[in-house]
Amino acid sequence: MSIAGPSQLPMAKDFSSFLSLEGASRKKSPLKGLLRFMKGDMVSLGGGLPHPSNFPFYSLSSDIASMKPVGQNVKNVAVVNEKAASVSSENVFVPHGPQPGKVENLSSALQMHRPKYQDWDVVLSAGNTDGFAKAVSMLCNRGDQILVEEWTYPAALEMMDPLGIRHVPVGMDGEGMSAVALKDLLDNWGSIPEQANEAKPRVVYLIPTGQNPTGATMSVQRRKDIIKVAKEHDLILIEDDPYYYLQFFIGEDKSADNETQSGWMPTLLSLDTDGRVIRLDTFSKTLAPGCRVGYMSMNARFCTIVQSHNEVTIQQPSGFSQGLLAEMLVSNWGQEGYKRYLTEKVRTEYFNRSQHLQACFRKHVNPRFASFIEPTAGMFVWIKIHVDQHPRYGTMPDSALMLELFNKCVENNVLMVPGWQFSCKPKPSNLDLSDLLGCWFDDEATYLRATFSYATFEQMDQAMTRFGESLEAVFSA
Amino acid sequence: MSIAGPSQLPMAKDFSSFLSLEGASRKKSPLKGLLRFMKGDMVSLGGGLPHPSNFPFYSLSSDIASMKPVGQNVKNVAVVNEKAASVSSENVFVPHGPQPGKVENLSSALQMHRPKYQDWDVVLSAGNTDGFAKAVSMLCNRGDQILVEEWTYPAALEMMDPLGIRHVPVGMDGEGMSAVALKDLLDNWGSIPEQANEAKPRVVYLIPTGQNPTGATMSVQRRKDIIKVAKEHDLILIEDDPYYYLQFFIGEDKSADNETQSGWMPTLLSLDTDGRVIRLDTFSKTLAPGCRVGYMSMNARFCTIVQSHNEVTIQQPSGFSQGLLAEMLVSNWGQEGYKRYLTEKVRTEYFNRSQHLQACFRKHVNPRFASFIEPTAGMFVWIKIHVDQHPRYGTMPDSALMLELFNKCVENNVLMVPGWQFSCKPKPSNLDLSDLLGCWFDDEATYLRATFSYATFEQMDQAMTRFGESLEAVFSA
Repeated sequence: MSIAGPSQLPMAKDFSSFLSLEGASRKKSPLKGLLRFMKGDMVSLGGGLPHPSNFPFYSLSSDIASMKPVGQNVKNVAVVNEKAASVSSENVFVPHGPQPGKVENLSSALQMHRPKYQDWDVVLSAGNTDGFAKAVSMLCNRGDQILVEEWTYPAALEMMDPLGIRHVPVGMDGEGMSAVALKDLLDNWGSIPEQANEAKPRVVYLIPTGQNPTGATMSVQRRKDIIKVAKEHDLILIEDDPYYYLQFFIGEDKSADNETQSGWMPTLLSLDTDGRVIRLDTFSKTLAPGCRVGYMSMNARFCTIVQSHNEVTIQQPSGFSQGLLAEMLVSNWGQEGYKRYLTEKVRTEYFNRSQHLQACFRKHVNPRFASFIEPTAGMFVWIKIHVDQHPRYGTMPDSALMLELFNKCVENNVLMVPGWQFSCKPKPSNLDLSDLLGCWFDDEATYLRATFSYATFEQMDQAMTRFGESLEAVFSA
Repeated sequence: MSIAGPSQLPMAKDFSSFLSLEGASRKKSPLKGLLRFMKGDMVSLGGGLPHPSNFPFYSLSSDIASMKPVGQNVKNVAVVNEKAASVSSENVFVPHGPQPGKVENLSSALQMHRPKYQDWDVVLSAGNTDGFAKAVSMLCNRGDQILVEEWTYPAALEMMDPLGIRHVPVGMDGEGMSAVALKDLLDNWGSIPEQANEAKPRVVYLIPTGQNPTGATMSVQRRKDIIKVAKEHDLILIEDDPYYYLQFFIGEDKSADNETQSGWMPTLLSLDTDGRVIRLDTFSKTLAPGCRVGYMSMNARFCTIVQSHNEVTIQQPSGFSQGLLAEMLVSNWGQEGYKRYLTEKVRTEYFNRSQHLQACFRKHVNPRFASFIEPTAGMFVWIKIHVDQHPRYGTMPDSALMLELFNKCVENNVLMVPGWQFSCKPKPSNLDLSDLLGCWFDDEATYLRATFSYATFEQMDQAMTRFGESLEAVFSA
């Protein structure tokens, strides 16, 4: 259930006409109708579940990072890499048997956003990829088109392709998807031959913070502009925001409105008064990917549909994950502790990692051959290769130059992700895309994606040394 | 990877022509292609994952039931209801950081079946409902038809409906789906008007053991007969078997072939030499539903497709669940301990519960008004109401009599699931199916499903007393 906002807020608009055949026909299971009889003296031989006393798990516990506000145990640990042993920890304990309200409290704890309309709600997912798949199946039929950033998360495209849902790239700049490009595309929809018989797309998928792969983060103004275009062209926005809490400079965008008095960028959800934003949050980047717990915040009607979809697929995320998160976020850390964890630990960790990788780049890489836009959030640096500086530039396709560089990097033992993997262009069927040393498609994919979330500081230094040498070798050839 | 069987076994047949548009176009992500470069001195800035040292979970542990073979701690505890405190337990501990091979070992531990062809494999799911959804999307296009038992698991139908995948009921008897009915239906396909323009169905969904809702279990002969029809009519069988290990009389079917020297019924998978069975197993009924871990055993090509589907939806089941199950099933209990748990604890528990509910029924219910076929596995008793014994039988629809009985039961504080919820008939759109006291559709649904998995022994006695009284009241009216 949603924690209702102040009653002067509007209700969400009716987006029923946006539902796919699948979404529109999803129904609540009548089996759940039995639950309301469970009161008083009722004895149920109804639901087909084992009794918890038969579970062979009697308790569950985890040592977790301490988020007590006092003492010296919180700060300065974030950038140490082998830190688990030295850090202050606490134990959370999930006892056997039902815990009234605890997991329900998890749902309340997850209502961290405050949309500007009344009837919103939250539904759990098994992470943002699962959430995205459910949003798409709710909204899109085979043959429909979704607007996406021109470089985007490959699994999103790989999810849509087999469903016959196509994607239309929208131009980006250093702040992610361009609101101007989005508006232009839709204002002029149908003006080019390949759009002539195509319905105007109604759904946009975008990653507003620390975008994968470009690392771009939307400014406050950009977010407002995107919402404006969405209203104007009546779009549903799927806001996939796994890196939201990995913002390095919180509070530094002074153009922020009320929302950002918290210091964080306003979410698209928070700027939406219509109920047209489907926001996907996850614990995969802030706690651990293995949680497989995420949550979708959106209008209540959409929540009901996704909940019904959950009930005929995953049912719900793992009870072990939910139990531990509830103990940790509700009982132990609390909202305050979690916020402190996000600002003091997660943010500091990724800020320092990002700074270190950039410093290594500047130290070892000739700026004539490669550059990047400094990320302000997330895990990624999107390195642009200046192919026009190559001596054989123009005599062979740019993709051949990129493939040469990628091979040299692998030979020199440094691995980054080929830019073409994030391309929206149709993948040629005559290429073996698993043969990374032998294929590079898309001449505009003159990029490599570097991640600073995993390697040690020493490894980052080594990687940039090797990358610099690889560039020198290829560009002097 | 599969543990290859003896090399004289055949390879699976090629079932490519059975794939749906979705299944046929599912591709491996090229991102995974980076993994093979990860050796020697390679430094990767590739994969976008947080480093495990940043996870705020330092360890995970659980007190679990002891499965040591010696001592008095194992037996005789299974039927005690409030037993957690008195039972012998051990602690399994999942340390922080990567545990080479441990979760891989979970996959090996799950290869408990031995199909009779070489190229089979196992892939994890988030439980059988999730596995079923993925099997269906791999095999069926909108408009296709799936053969199902005439009374079946509602979530299976609710999963198919929104996808536009229709179902065709197949007759059942006390041993579940009838092989004769299946063969007749397919031999004569197209002979009735509503089949005239319909392609012959190629996929069968069935629950062979402790069927939901009927409690029926297929005999060895029935299993062989079903496989024979599947070969003859070139069918894919989706074997949903959550109650497989809840068999009460293992080893008592003397018609068993080699497979059942273990005492368990042969699975359909084990009787299949072609690779046409998709077997769904889960820990939901044997350990705890909250695990949200299941596994699909089937031909390797299908496994690859479902794995790709996993990678663009759930990724994988919860790491907490996987870690605990690996510690428990691989390190602590081992295969032997798990088998002992299944035979000595799970089986005994459900056998005793089943016997108790049946005894209560015989004690409190007039056999003139209701009866059931004794279940030999699972959690369910499918109670047939003898509506023809009702004084107003024939003067009003059977569904009206059933609704009267259901209302009386609720009034008397005993709850069972209305039989119509498991009906394959099209649900009338003019009925509010959430109004359980006001609707009963399908005149043939003269059943109530009782579950003996959850209530205490005392509650079962109470429930049957109240049910007997409700029957008397309604049938004497």
